[in-house]
Amino acid sequence: MRPALNRPATFALLLISGLTALMAVGIARAEQAMRIAEPSNFVLDNGLEIVVIPDHRAPVVTHMVWYKAGSADEPWGKSGIAHFVEHLLFKGTKTAEPGEFSKAIAEIGGQENAFTSVDYTAYFQKVVPDALEMVMRYEADRMQNLTLTESDVETERDVILEERRQRVDANPGSILSEALNAAVYQNHPYGIPIIGWEHEMVGLSREDALDFYDTHYTPNNAILIVAGDIEPEEVLELARKTYGMVERRAEPGQRVRPSEPDSVVSRKVSYRDARVTIPSMRRIYLAPSYRIAEPREAEALDILSTILGGASTSRIKRALMVDQTIASSAGSSYWGGLYDNAELSIYLTPLPNVELAKAEANLDGIIEDLRQNGVTQEELDTARDSLIKSMMFSSDSQSSMARLFGTVLTTGGTVKDVVEWPDRMMSVTVEDVNKAAKKYLDPKRATTGYLLPEATL
Amino acid sequence: MRPALNRPATFALLLISGLTALMAVGIARAEQAMRIAEPSNFVLDNGLEIVVIPDHRAPVVTHMVWYKAGSADEPWGKSGIAHFVEHLLFKGTKTAEPGEFSKAIAEIGGQENAFTSVDYTAYFQKVVPDALEMVMRYEADRMQNLTLTESDVETERDVILEERRQRVDANPGSILSEALNAAVYQNHPYGIPIIGWEHEMVGLSREDALDFYDTHYTPNNAILIVAGDIEPEEVLELARKTYGMVERRAEPGQRVRPSEPDSVVSRKVSYRDARVTIPSMRRIYLAPSYRIAEPREAEALDILSTILGGASTSRIKRALMVDQTIASSAGSSYWGGLYDNAELSIYLTPLPNVELAKAEANLDGIIEDLRQNGVTQEELDTARDSLIKSMMFSSDSQSSMARLFGTVLTTGGTVKDVVEWPDRMMSVTVEDVNKAAKKYLDPKRATTGYLLPEATL
Repeated sequence: MRPALNRPATFALLLISGLTALMAVGIARAEQAMRIAEPSNFVLDNGLEIVVIPDHRAPVVTHMVWYKAGSADEPWGKSGIAHFVEHLLFKGTKTAEPGEFSKAIAEIGGQENAFTSVDYTAYFQKVVPDALEMVMRYEADRMQNLTLTESDVETERDVILEERRQRVDANPGSILSEALNAAVYQNHPYGIPIIGWEHEMVGLSREDALDFYDTHYTPNNAILIVAGDIEPEEVLELARKTYGMVERRAEPGQRVRPSEPDSVVSRKVSYRDARVTIPSMRRIYLAPSYRIAEPREAEALDILSTILGGASTSRIKRALMVDQTIASSAGSSYWGGLYDNAELSIYLTPLPNVELAKAEANLDGIIEDLRQNGVTQEELDTARDSLIKSMMFSSDSQSSMARLFGTVLTTGGTVKDVVEWPDRMMSVTVEDVNKAAKKYLDPKRATTGYLLPEATL
Repeated sequence: MRPALNRPATFALLLISGLTALMAVGIARAEQAMRIAEPSNFVLDNGLEIVVIPDHRAPVVTHMVWYKAGSADEPWGKSGIAHFVEHLLFKGTKTAEPGEFSKAIAEIGGQENAFTSVDYTAYFQKVVPDALEMVMRYEADRMQNLTLTESDVETERDVILEERRQRVDANPGSILSEALNAAVYQNHPYGIPIIGWEHEMVGLSREDALDFYDTHYTPNNAILIVAGDIEPEEVLELARKTYGMVERRAEPGQRVRPSEPDSVVSRKVSYRDARVTIPSMRRIYLAPSYRIAEPREAEALDILSTILGGASTSRIKRALMVDQTIASSAGSSYWGGLYDNAELSIYLTPLPNVELAKAEANLDGIIEDLRQNGVTQEELDTARDSLIKSMMFSSDSQSSMARLFGTVLTTGGTVKDVVEWPDRMMSVTVEDVNKAAKKYLDPKRATTGYLLPEATL
C-alpha cells in the first residue's frame, strides 16, 4: 500500500497492458467484438475533467485522480517535492485523521496506491461500486483540505530518503540511470530524478510541500478516471456531489518547461561499481513524444522501435541473440507518452564471454544498416500486426485501462487521441519509419550509459 | 566598444593579470615596495558597496559597477537574459537618449565596455579623473531609469543572436564547450550557456528584460569599484551625490542556486565537425570555489593545478611536451573565482602524428601518479614561488585590478580576502595539496570533452 514512484522507463511495461485495453477499444470496434464500452468524457464547472469507462465483467470499480503535476513541474532546487507531496497526501485533512482514508479502504477489502512521474501524480483505489461515493468524498477532501504538521513532514521526509537509498543507492543500475538521464537532458527538467536529488530532499520543508500542493492540487488541474461496474451518469452525479464542491484553488495555466537545445554532441556516461559483475549499456536517443511529434511521427517511432529491437523477431534480438550468440539481453523501446521530449532507448547486456565494446559495435552496425537502408513494407506490416495483436491479447484490466487514459490526458492528449490511435497506426508508411530512423537514431545525438565492474587497475 | 561576454574559462587568463595587482598589494607590503595603496571600502546607506584603489601613476581612473547577477541568476527557461540586459543598458533612460552615455565617453577619449559572466554583470569606463562625476551620473541613471521600447528589444535580440552564431556556431570548440558544460553540471545553472540557448534567446521579451533589471539592478546588489588617480574621500563624495540618490529598488536577498549532487559517474562528450583537423580534449573535474572551499583547500587547488599542468615545468608539460614529444599543447588550470562550484580543467592537443587516445592514456598516467604518490615540498615551494613571482611581475593595470576586486566581491569574497590571499597561500602544506589531488582528480567524477574530425566511416 505504500505510495510508489515510477520512472517512465519501467512504466512503459505497465503501459503495454494499458494499451491493450485501449487497443481493445479501437480494434474491437473494427472487429465488432467490443467488450468494453467507449469512454464518456465530462467536465465539471470547476474544471475537473472526468472519464468513465464502463466495464461490467465484475462488481468492482477503479477510481483514480490524476494531477497534471509531476517532478518536471517542481520549482528548480526543490527536486522530489512532487513525490513528497504524494506521500504527504496520506496524512490528515481538516476533517479526516491521518491514515483514516487508507483505513476505510482497507476495511472494505479495497486496494489503493499512488504514484508520481515526471508529468503527473496519481491516486488510485479499487473498491466495490457501493464504496465509490465514500472514496470520492475522501479524495475530494484531500484535494483541498490537507493539513500538515512539522512532525508529519519530518517523519515522511525520512521515509522518502530511505526510499531513495533503497531505490537508487542500493542499485548500481539506478545510479547509472540517474546520471544517464542527467546527461540526456541539457536543459529540460526531465534530467532531474523524480525522487529528487538527496541533497535537495533533505531540505524539503512543510512550506515547500504546501506551496506545491496549493499550486497544483486544484480541480481544474485534475482528471478523474472511473473504470468499472458503473454507468457514466452515476459517476457524474457522484462527482458533482463530491468533487463538484471543491473550488478552483489555483490557475496553474499552460505547462511551460525549459526545452532542450538541438544537440549534435554525443555523450557517454560510465559508472563502475563492485556490485556489477556483467557489464551492460543503455543508450537514449531523444525523440518527440506523441504530443509534440509531427503527424504519424510518434506512431512511426513505435513501429520503428518494434522492428529494431522490440519484437522477438526484431533485428537486434535476431542478430545478437539468435543468429549470433552475443547478448543475453538486447533490444529497444520507445516511450512516447511524455508531455515534452520522449526517448527511444536501446539496451544491451553481452554474454559473459563477450566484450561489451565488441557487442556494442555489432549493435551499432545493425542500427546504422537500418538507418541507411530502411525497413521493408513486410517488416512494417509484421511489426504493426504483432504490436496490435500482442496488445489485444494481453491484460485488459480496469486499472491499466484507467492508467492509460490518465497518462494520455495528463500529457496533452485527449480521449479521442486514445480511441483513434489504431487508425493512426494504420496510416504509417515505410517512408515515415525510415524518416524517423534517419532523424532520431543519429549517433551524434545519442547518450550512452555504461554499467561496469570495478576497474581491475 | 561592444559589450563583451566572458566565460570563466577564458576569463581566468584575464584574471591572472588581475591577480598580479592583488599580489602587488599583499606581497609588496611584505617587501616594503608598495606602489599601490591599500583599497578603501565603504557602504552607502542604500546598500551600494564601494571599493577605491588609489593609483597615481597616471592621470586616469577606471570606474566599474558590478551587479551580483549573472546567467546563473536567470529564471529557468530564460537563458541569455542577463547578457541581453547588459546589451540593453546601452539603450536610453528616462533622461538620456540611447547611446548618449557612450557618446559622452567617446567624446572625451575615454573607453568603455561591459561583460556578463555566470555570477555577475559589469560595466566599465576608463576616463580622465575630471570626467568621473559625469560617468557616475550616467551609470547611476541607468541603474534605475532604463526605458526600453519594443523596437530596442527586437533590434538588440538580433544582435545577441548574431553574437551567438559567431561565438558558438562558427566555432567547433565552442559547440563542444557548451555541451561539455551542460554535461558537467547535472543540476546547477552553470551548465547553461551565458549567452543563452538559441531557442530560448529568440523568445526573450521586453518584459523578461525589465523583470531581470528590476530584480537585480539595485544599489544594494551592486559594487562600485574606482581605481586610479583619485582619493577615496573624493570618490565617496561623488558617489553620495550620484549613486546615493538611487533608491533600493529590490531586495534580491541571498543567492541560492540549485546545487550539484555528489556525482560518482564519469561522463564523456564527443563532437565531430568537418572544420576540425587535429583532435583535442578537455576534461573538467568539479572542485570547490574559494567561497565554498574548506580552509586552504582552494589555495591548495591553485598550487596543485600549477604543479600538475600550470607552470612550464609542470608535470604534464614536462612529460608530454619536453621529455616526450606527444602534445602540441597540454596543461591544467583551476578557476576558483566562482560563487558556487569551481572547475579544475585539463586540456590536451596531441601532435598530428600522435593518436588522441594514446596521448590521453599518457596524461591519465601522470594524473594518477600524482594522486597516488603526491607532490613534494620542493614542487609546492617552486609552484607557489613561481605563481607569486609571475603574478608580481605581470601587468598590474588599473582595470585588471578593479576587475579582480569586482570578481571577488560579486562571488562571496571581501576586500580582506583579497588582501590576505598571499598569507593564506603561504600556509598551504604538501598534505593539503595531496588531499585535494586525491579528492578532486578522481576519474570517477571527471567529464571529458572530445573535439574530433568528421568520422571517416
